[in-house]
Amino acid sequence: MQWYYVAALLTLLTSSQGILTTLSQTNGRYKYDYATVPFLAEIFKLLVSGFFLWREIKSQSSPRMTTEWKAVRLFVVPSIIYLVHNNVQFATLTYVDPSTYQIMGNLKIVTTGILFRLFLKRKLSNLQWLAIILLAVGTTTSQVKGCGEASCDSLFSAPIQGYVLGILSACLSALAGVYTEYLMKKNNDSLYWQNVQLYAFGAMFNCARLHWDDYSGGYEKGPWWQRLLNGYTFTTWMVVLNLGSTGLLVSWLMKFADNIVKVYSTSMAMLLTTVLSVYLFNSQPTVQLFLGIIICMISLHMYFAPVRMLVDLPATSKSVSSTLKEVTVENHE
Amino acid sequence: MQWYYVAALLTLLTSSQGILTTLSQTNGRYKYDYATVPFLAEIFKLLVSGFFLWREIKSQSSPRMTTEWKAVRLFVVPSIIYLVHNNVQFATLTYVDPSTYQIMGNLKIVTTGILFRLFLKRKLSNLQWLAIILLAVGTTTSQVKGCGEASCDSLFSAPIQGYVLGILSACLSALAGVYTEYLMKKNNDSLYWQNVQLYAFGAMFNCARLHWDDYSGGYEKGPWWQRLLNGYTFTTWMVVLNLGSTGLLVSWLMKFADNIVKVYSTSMAMLLTTVLSVYLFNSQPTVQLFLGIIICMISLHMYFAPVRMLVDLPATSKSVSSTLKEVTVENHE
Repeated sequence: MQWYYVAALLTLLTSSQGILTTLSQTNGRYKYDYATVPFLAEIFKLLVSGFFLWREIKSQSSPRMTTEWKAVRLFVVPSIIYLVHNNVQFATLTYVDPSTYQIMGNLKIVTTGILFRLFLKRKLSNLQWLAIILLAVGTTTSQVKGCGEASCDSLFSAPIQGYVLGILSACLSALAGVYTEYLMKKNNDSLYWQNVQLYAFGAMFNCARLHWDDYSGGYEKGPWWQRLLNGYTFTTWMVVLNLGSTGLLVSWLMKFADNIVKVYSTSMAMLLTTVLSVYLFNSQPTVQLFLGIIICMISLHMYFAPVRMLVDLPATSKSVSSTLKEVTVENHE
Repeated sequence: MQWYYVAALLTLLTSSQGILTTLSQTNGRYKYDYATVPFLAEIFKLLVSGFFLWREIKSQSSPRMTTEWKAVRLFVVPSIIYLVHNNVQFATLTYVDPSTYQIMGNLKIVTTGILFRLFLKRKLSNLQWLAIILLAVGTTTSQVKGCGEASCDSLFSAPIQGYVLGILSACLSALAGVYTEYLMKKNNDSLYWQNVQLYAFGAMFNCARLHWDDYSGGYEKGPWWQRLLNGYTFTTWMVVLNLGSTGLLVSWLMKFADNIVKVYSTSMAMLLTTVLSVYLFNSQPTVQLFLGIIICMISLHMYFAPVRMLVDLPATSKSVSSTLKEVTVENHE
């Protein structure tokens, strides 16, 4: 399977996630406990990955699996990062309003590029760096509040702690992605085995979170497992299914493509959601949405298009650039 | 003189033009007839160019000058295009509001690129096309009205004629620039001689315009030459001087650089004016201004940076790409 098909599917599913979540509300409110959705999505991913792993084990060629605790325990790291991230996110929102938080969220595109370079030692060309900055600028542009939509009071006026926490949040979010990519690629283990480890820890942490919510709420609503599926409708199950499926696609991309592909995929999904909202929920299209889409498309092209398509090398370039590779290889040897 | 020094100077002078024009107002109104400013600027440019031409003629090496009427009459074309453009502009503004008009004005960046390719047969790489589109998007982004600044009523709601005329206006503006470049480069005539022809026609057309304004106003305020300098202050003279100087720099760029350099120069000036206005006139800085500046800087880099700086060719690329040129030359022979 080609990575761009997976990336396109991820874009479609991620964008429908926002739509489904909105549709799952009843009269603008959630009738179910939203915190149960990620938990059930982890369970779904664990079951799917477990099933495929079982099939692999039963087949002729048994899958590669590293089962030493020294290796397995690393898969808890993404869960821990997400836990810290959630708390930082919560703290940030006490300083800045949600739309400023959303705008700052685009920083994670740039921090992902930086950590991708620093931790995974992946080289990016200057043009690709420009493309990454442009993607962050493009998504931000599309989110800028339109004319008459809001007052400027909140603009640049949050306390400095809010911005520091926002930057920390962007770094943590990028770190989780980059660390997952590192885990998935560090050996040739079966993707399903890696997934099972990842989602087992994920399910545990989500479960612990539900416990914690109950504890801090003084068990007023009873324990979470008794009201786990309260208020669940068909649409809610679709949200769970969708969240689980996007998670599986992200894992696949982390193993066979990379974090930057994922970042483009989810950024495009954000734009697609906004466009779909214009049609589905009659929201007003803004000039900045239109501009943001053009910017992100240009960025996509800059990052992924082959150099030859961008800079019109002379007709002979094909043979020459293959020579070029040979020359380089010779030099390295 | 290097073209980028001239381009930088043009940026500075063009951006101070907006500031000076605002400063030349008394209590938010012009006490002088603004239509007299371009006329005096043409006279200024004509005098300066005439002086330098006279010096060239007096010096040892007499300048190249084509004086046949068949060649001279071509210099009237830019003036005619500007005349048509002014009328189209006026017509457009009866359909769309000034801020929509300003936003549509950025289209001329793209139309300049297209006419530059079509009429001057200049090749642009795909990356340069992306850069040009991005420049238009960036300047537009910076102009998007901020939160609470205006209502959305005017957005996308003008009659279709308004948009058609806006596009026509962008084409005419680009055509004037491209035609001037064609004139300046079609032979090795002295720049000053070319300027004298250009500005002589310019002065004539501006003079005719002042006549026309008087005529259509029924000579209520008396003939224009009697009130030419009415209400002129030191700042007004600075506006005239500034407009004249930018015109001379543009002529220089048309001869020794090109239209795209001019487009970048004036776009950067627009951003600089907006930034300076924040300081000088205490206008509110917007997120979209900040985003627009980043976008335009990236575009600038994409257009002008050498390919080698953008895509990290291997260390051997220098020698290889020089071979590349030789190969191409051989192929063409």
